Amino acid sequence: MSDLGELRDEVYEANLELVRRGLVIYTFGNASGILRGEDLVAIKPSGVPYDALRPADLVITDLNGKIVEGRMRPSSDLATHLVLYRNFRSIGGVVHTHSTFATSWAQAGRDIPCLGTTHADYFHGAVPVTEHMQACDIEGEYERNTGEVIVRRFARLDAERFPAVLVAGHAPFCWGPSASAAAHTAVILEEIARMAYYTTTINASVQPISTALHDRHFLRKHGPERYYGQPE
Amino acid sequence: MSDLGELRDEVYEANLELVRRGLVIYTFGNASGILRGEDLVAIKPSGVPYDALRPADLVITDLNGKIVEGRMRPSSDLATHLVLYRNFRSIGGVVHTHSTFATSWAQAGRDIPCLGTTHADYFHGAVPVTEHMQACDIEGEYERNTGEVIVRRFARLDAERFPAVLVAGHAPFCWGPSASAAAHTAVILEEIARMAYYTTTINASVQPISTALHDRHFLRKHGPERYYGQPE
Amino acid sequence: MSDLGELRDEVYEANLELVRRGLVIYTFGNASGILRGEDLVAIKPSGVPYDALRPADLVITDLNGKIVEGRMRPSSDLATHLVLYRNFRSIGGVVHTHSTFATSWAQAGRDIPCLGTTHADYFHGAVPVTEHMQACDIEGEYERNTGEVIVRRFARLDAERFPAVLVAGHAPFCWGPSASAAAHTAVILEEIARMAYYTTTINASVQPISTALHDRHFLRKHGPERYYGQPE
Amino acid sequence: MSDLGELRDEVYEANLELVRRGLVIYTFGNASGILRGEDLVAIKPSGVPYDALRPADLVITDLNGKIVEGRMRPSSDLATHLVLYRNFRSIGGVVHTHSTFATSWAQAGRDIPCLGTTHADYFHGAVPVTEHMQACDIEGEYERNTGEVIVRRFARLDAERFPAVLVAGHAPFCWGPSASAAAHTAVILEEIARMAYYTTTINASVQPISTALHDRHFLRKHGPERYYGQPE
Repeated sequence: MSDLGELRDEVYEANLELVRRGLVIYTFGNASGILRGEDLVAIKPSGVPYDALRPADLVITDLNGKIVEGRMRPSSDLATHLVLYRNFRSIGGVVHTHSTFATSWAQAGRDIPCLGTTHADYFHGAVPVTEHMQACDIEGEYERNTGEVIVRRFARLDAERFPAVLVAGHAPFCWGPSASAAAHTAVILEEIARMAYYTTTINASVQPISTALHDRHFLRKHGPERYYGQPE
Repeated sequence: MSDLGELRDEVYEANLELVRRGLVIYTFGNASGILRGEDLVAIKPSGVPYDALRPADLVITDLNGKIVEGRMRPSSDLATHLVLYRNFRSIGGVVHTHSTFATSWAQAGRDIPCLGTTHADYFHGAVPVTEHMQACDIEGEYERNTGEVIVRRFARLDAERFPAVLVAGHAPFCWGPSASAAAHTAVILEEIARMAYYTTTINASVQPISTALHDRHFLRKHGPERYYGQPE
Repeated sequence: MSDLGELRDEVYEANLELVRRGLVIYTFGNASGILRGEDLVAIKPSGVPYDALRPADLVITDLNGKIVEGRMRPSSDLATHLVLYRNFRSIGGVVHTHSTFATSWAQAGRDIPCLGTTHADYFHGAVPVTEHMQACDIEGEYERNTGEVIVRRFARLDAERFPAVLVAGHAPFCWGPSASAAAHTAVILEEIARMAYYTTTINASVQPISTALHDRHFLRKHGPERYYGQPE
Repeated sequence: MSDLGELRDEVYEANLELVRRGLVIYTFGNASGILRGEDLVAIKPSGVPYDALRPADLVITDLNGKIVEGRMRPSSDLATHLVLYRNFRSIGGVVHTHSTFATSWAQAGRDIPCLGTTHADYFHGAVPVTEHMQACDIEGEYERNTGEVIVRRFARLDAERFPAVLVAGHAPFCWGPSASAAAHTAVILEEIARMAYYTTTINASVQPISTALHDRHFLRKHGPERYYGQPE
């Protein structure tokens, strides 16, 4: 990502990917991306339907949420995205959806256990759910505090190995090296959540897969020994 | 909404939105709108497939159901719509569907509990289900009495803060400031009902979200302090 | 229905409707129609994919299954259709699918209880499931005996008021005044089966709707007092 | 299948069929085919999105996995496919997906019981699940050992009568006389898995269908006495 024009295009495409994959309806959800170095964030404007969205409608802010470019209000979830960018220094994009199954696990207040290799290919363990937010956090700077409750949940987790979280009673936030990677994760997370739902209904006492299998799948796609895909 | 032509167009579009979003099949469902002041209601004709529907096919009636314009019979649910227009004075549109998940909760005779912020964004508490209708109400003016059982359920509820109801053993009715707003609510209600279904299956003892979280989300989209979306 | 050409067209269209509505994949399912008076039946050929099907491919047989026109083998379920035409004298079309939810109830060996007005609009009570077929019936003229087990299940049921059956361990057969009506019923049955599935999961002790409500909905669409739809 | 050009085309089409039927997203899944006699295998390259795939991108290997043609890495699951080709001598194609319901049964570690004739039409009994793989198998030649665990599960099963397996904690592998037949089986397996899920939820104590019914359906589509479809 070298300039703001490219950032706009990628964030715009990431927002549309959420629609194409059926993760959002009407004005639900939002994707953002950051130009590290310049610390500029591009995000979807609030409450704009996707089919009316143009790259020029994206709002550009700094890491404190001050608007640098754009005539519209940024997504009301901007403050949550900014907390993630400030705390997870390696990430380049954030996506928030209310996709059906991931949101259902978030509403249920349950981690999504790692029940198969589809999950292990993307997450190095269960998809974590946050604690329920307290009234003082909700009544204060709510969106910022949503970010803080995520960061607290990651006190002992690596955001690169766990590229998504479920906010209890709310919905998932996903991230990655870019906005498009974050959107990709949002699609995969929804499928993982769907299969975990059906799996636990078929077998209520199912156990997570073994550490050996988990590591094998995670590491064949990530890290120095990876051998999935084509050489870069 | 300033004249009957605009009303026809909006009600026509609201009917088509139900098809586009997969909420109705064949001749199921119906949308109507009202021109307050003139107290004229436009509603889908009974039993007409959506792909054959034209704006000119809509039936125009007064608030007592007397046909003012149109050659076809109005929807058999007209009398229910009229009771809602007479009792909920601020609403401008009504939509009735048999959408899968909302109807399943109605058939189950259960309120849809507020389990997350998606729900809280639109309803200020659980989506209410009516009592089961009595034989005397069913055998009398059934469709009108369907409206009356809804109105009784709203004795202590505000129709602006609860823009839908589940009629027990039947299906949802939704409303809003316009026919298109009512159709929008019908789409959201189906998604809320779907996620509540999956959530309660994942965690049978799940509790509704806190009042603090509920109020925060409802009020960030509604009322004088709202900050979601663009300024009007 | 006045001649064989019209019958071919209607049966062809009914077969395609099953594809459009997602009730069949590959070569699953089949629709037929009958020209009463001449007692000629048009049915889908066996094992032909829908996108390769032409009206001229339909096989025409008499009520004993003797081929009158057509070069291909008729559907292997022909003998079941013929038993239904011989025993249910008022029907004009038969449709067989393995649609997901209706088949799941058939596999579960359970009647679909009438839990709401969507169901009551089409069936005058639960959708009946047959008994499981005995080895002697299966090893003999299997497809004909499938028809016979349906007819036995209808010993005290009216095929006009119950336009479908679930064959235990197999799948639904639907019928109506024409092939297109039978296809319509197949679509509705799948939706009824889907909602009954979700309803009984939400509330395991749910009861069927009252007789009063049931009769009201069934009779507003059927019989001399009907007032749903437009006058014919 | 007479030459490598035809093999490429068929394997390419089989890969696309997985996309058209909704069995794969992004780079999930892979299909391969073999030219018996010459023992050449054509397989999807690793990590390539389906919409970018061209027939020329397929990788051609021998039965030991040595690349004969192609510039890209073959699917990381190649070694599993090769074990199947070496051990199941009559098969001509292999397909691997992470389709939702089949994968959920695999994650649950459960055979899919034969609950109806849809299943019996394709499998001569339950769809088998393998044992969970041991750490030593996972940490060694993982993909090859995945094939070996499948072969062990088939010690007393005929791969022609059971054209798919569920690898525990992973997902299904399907096969058939050709790549397109294997893709067809993958589609059917997903539907069978879906219906088995719903059936066991409706009736937790449901039993598999009788041997008589099972044999009837399997044998009317397979073997010398088959009478489903058109004569070949």
